[in-house]
Amino acid sequence: MIDMGSNSWRLVVYGWEPGTAWWSLTDEIREAVRVGAGMGEDNVLQPEPMERAVHTAAVFSSFCRAAGVEQIEPLATSAIRDASNRDELLDEIRRTTGLEVRVVSGEEEARYGYLAIANSTTLEDGYGIDLGGGSVQLMRLEGRQLQESISLPLGTVRMSERFLPEEKASSKQIKALRAHVREEVEGLDWWGGGGRLVGIGGTIRNLAAAAQKELDFPDVDVGGFELTADALDELIETLADRPASKRGNVKGIKPDRADVILGGALVLATAMEAGGHDLVEVSEAGLREGAFLGNVIEGDPPLFEDVRRQSVENLAHRFNTAPAHVGHVARLSLEMFDGLLEEGLHQYGDEERELLWAACVLHDIGTAIDYDDHHRHSHYLILHAGLPGFTPRELVLIGLIARYHRKGDPDASELGDLGRKGDQQLLDLLCGVIRLAEQLERSRDQSVEAVAIAAANGTVTLEPRHGGGDTSVAIWSARRNSDLLARALDLDVEVAD
Amino acid sequence: MIDMGSNSWRLVVYGWEPGTAWWSLTDEIREAVRVGAGMGEDNVLQPEPMERAVHTAAVFSSFCRAAGVEQIEPLATSAIRDASNRDELLDEIRRTTGLEVRVVSGEEEARYGYLAIANSTTLEDGYGIDLGGGSVQLMRLEGRQLQESISLPLGTVRMSERFLPEEKASSKQIKALRAHVREEVEGLDWWGGGGRLVGIGGTIRNLAAAAQKELDFPDVDVGGFELTADALDELIETLADRPASKRGNVKGIKPDRADVILGGALVLATAMEAGGHDLVEVSEAGLREGAFLGNVIEGDPPLFEDVRRQSVENLAHRFNTAPAHVGHVARLSLEMFDGLLEEGLHQYGDEERELLWAACVLHDIGTAIDYDDHHRHSHYLILHAGLPGFTPRELVLIGLIARYHRKGDPDASELGDLGRKGDQQLLDLLCGVIRLAEQLERSRDQSVEAVAIAAANGTVTLEPRHGGGDTSVAIWSARRNSDLLARALDLDVEVAD
Repeated sequence: MIDMGSNSWRLVVYGWEPGTAWWSLTDEIREAVRVGAGMGEDNVLQPEPMERAVHTAAVFSSFCRAAGVEQIEPLATSAIRDASNRDELLDEIRRTTGLEVRVVSGEEEARYGYLAIANSTTLEDGYGIDLGGGSVQLMRLEGRQLQESISLPLGTVRMSERFLPEEKASSKQIKALRAHVREEVEGLDWWGGGGRLVGIGGTIRNLAAAAQKELDFPDVDVGGFELTADALDELIETLADRPASKRGNVKGIKPDRADVILGGALVLATAMEAGGHDLVEVSEAGLREGAFLGNVIEGDPPLFEDVRRQSVENLAHRFNTAPAHVGHVARLSLEMFDGLLEEGLHQYGDEERELLWAACVLHDIGTAIDYDDHHRHSHYLILHAGLPGFTPRELVLIGLIARYHRKGDPDASELGDLGRKGDQQLLDLLCGVIRLAEQLERSRDQSVEAVAIAAANGTVTLEPRHGGGDTSVAIWSARRNSDLLARALDLDVEVAD
Repeated sequence: MIDMGSNSWRLVVYGWEPGTAWWSLTDEIREAVRVGAGMGEDNVLQPEPMERAVHTAAVFSSFCRAAGVEQIEPLATSAIRDASNRDELLDEIRRTTGLEVRVVSGEEEARYGYLAIANSTTLEDGYGIDLGGGSVQLMRLEGRQLQESISLPLGTVRMSERFLPEEKASSKQIKALRAHVREEVEGLDWWGGGGRLVGIGGTIRNLAAAAQKELDFPDVDVGGFELTADALDELIETLADRPASKRGNVKGIKPDRADVILGGALVLATAMEAGGHDLVEVSEAGLREGAFLGNVIEGDPPLFEDVRRQSVENLAHRFNTAPAHVGHVARLSLEMFDGLLEEGLHQYGDEERELLWAACVLHDIGTAIDYDDHHRHSHYLILHAGLPGFTPRELVLIGLIARYHRKGDPDASELGDLGRKGDQQLLDLLCGVIRLAEQLERSRDQSVEAVAIAAANGTVTLEPRHGGGDTSVAIWSARRNSDLLARALDLDVEVAD
């Protein structure tokens, strides 16, 4: 997939097992082509940006040839779409590289943005914004369906060139930019009244990264990060105080976005204000995923049935985890979780139950790195290999539960600013449960078929149901690993024969 | 492969592409079976250890069935070999699990140890020691061939039970143990006079881990660690000061080795002393690899031609790196390294050249985790996924060169106690070189075929040789990434057309 945006171009290579929903991003090159630079009101692509574009197309095309990419889909968006001389560029690209570029309409661009959002987040009813270099797509979703959408020529490059052309941004210029955006957006009767809002595109990711750097966060990507209007306003102030060429020095801001990041921040802030949104949730997916996922997912529109489940299972699949084993650890863990709940020994609900499930499915992915310390490697992979649909807090919790599925004592302080009161107890409980489930499934043959919970007289008893295999080592190992759960419950924990 | 040692049993599952030398450890279970416990002088396996052994065999066997392991090779060593009632145990295992255990002779055990050492280190002429629970194998290598070897009944469990049977170890008992070991070893005319010594086995790894914890080290495994006789003596003092049951609290010591670790340390120290060795280099390989690698490697004895090269290429293969691209980055990097050397602009030699090569081959393995921040992920994988044959210092240097192949400034302080004077300059140079090579190979199609170095008047010029493809973006990108090399050389760096 080649995404020829108005600001950056990106070549992304997906690996995909046809007939399945297993996929992964296997390679990527990004170039700040800035093809829309200097287009102005009369929408003419300029010679230098066109030259950069032709060069980049050549690089991407020879990359695809060298890498043996089977299917190439080059998509062009706003800047090229709107250019009066676009055929000149597309002909030159075709002539020099053979690439047949498809120019995506504003409507299609919004639809790809919608598919990216609906397949990378849990958004069912709410709004989406895709902030690009040339255009902005706004969307409204209802029951995961796209109800309304529009593409507006309010992209970061376009707005920056028109309203903030100098090194210094005056407050007058800033006001004019905001007024222009407000005017365009306020005409939409369906954009307003608040609700959940998801944002995509490089500018929003970059703003989120800068806001995240201000917090005490474990090292995670920005997927699921909640960028508040307040944090955005602070960033705008910081950025507006500096000349354009120095904005890349703000922690988290990419240098090659320095000159358009303020314009982008202002567009986003104004659109959020007009829509009544205090925050925007960030998704790392984009046009590329939106266009690609149509190949992977069945149905119209192509939607994963359950984004989180898909993320977790896809990640486990990428690192070749034994599905029977991890699935059974999940089963035993959830049985214990439910049994303890029935006995009134904790008050956690579906949310925590899902985190436990995800950690179970992923607890062994680290063995792809090394068996030694694989619990630590699983933690690293969970934090870094991508789990769309979860917030940073959830991601870090899943990582910690997997980290402590064997060895060591969980420490809630690792959550940093993502922590909440009671997290230590939550972690002790969930880690205590997965640790016992792992021991009960020690022989990895599901010989402990199930486990029931009984509580009486200050003692919790795990009652395993035995299948055909030898369960004695499992029982023996579980008994040696019950401390953590006992501590979490402040009760004795016994494992019956 | 099932390794039924006298202390721990280990099931290791190897993945292997038949007909190739690509392999990986895909799964592992370890049980502290302690089958040799209480055997005493009359060599009778005791009922409890036998019961543990039969259970563990059942667990391992059902694991293999569940995991679809194609070929199972259970090997038993010293304790079972020497037991007068071994057939009773092996019959019971056969009856309950169907596993046909092969009892390895002392000579074979030494040969497997030798193959593990010769295929996981750069040792050509020198000595090896494999310290197990029941026996110790000593070896002498010449030109990577096994010249001498012996298996002696001086294992950690055996020696601990015989000489240190109580919670407290008296100095008299310690002396008696040492005297016994010395007597057995001093009879060997080929064990002595110093030279390189490599040690394998869980006890030595564990002692190395404890010694490593005393140092300011990046988080790496113990492969290649040099355990000095002095550090070992300090550990012995620390361990001997505590009762056996508390020795597992010493940082780095595994609790399930607590009661035999002192005995093991004393055997090792005495054997080193008798051999004239100030230090032992640790390999993480063991009997298992020794026995397995015969399937992977051709020749008799089956030896990798070049252990380090094999390690690097195998790791790159495990994480699916594009070989043409990384091979070409290596080629361009080495051309620059050599060209700069010829111009007298650095004084580094083959050692540093090899580290640069390894970092080039591995610089992209992190993309298996995520394209974003893949330089960081490559660093993590290099440190943790296993690169036999390199010392911790070399490993960390390779990791840092790969880490800084794009973005950021290398920082030699990350080496901690592994650092040496001049490391900052070394890192700047090697990172500066790989960063330029990566840009010259930006289109990943080898269109910049080669690069020559010219130096004159305070300027170093890189002169690319162009192939068929478009090299303009590569040249342009290289020009934007020459700062680091310029800083390392304290010269201007230019990239010619």
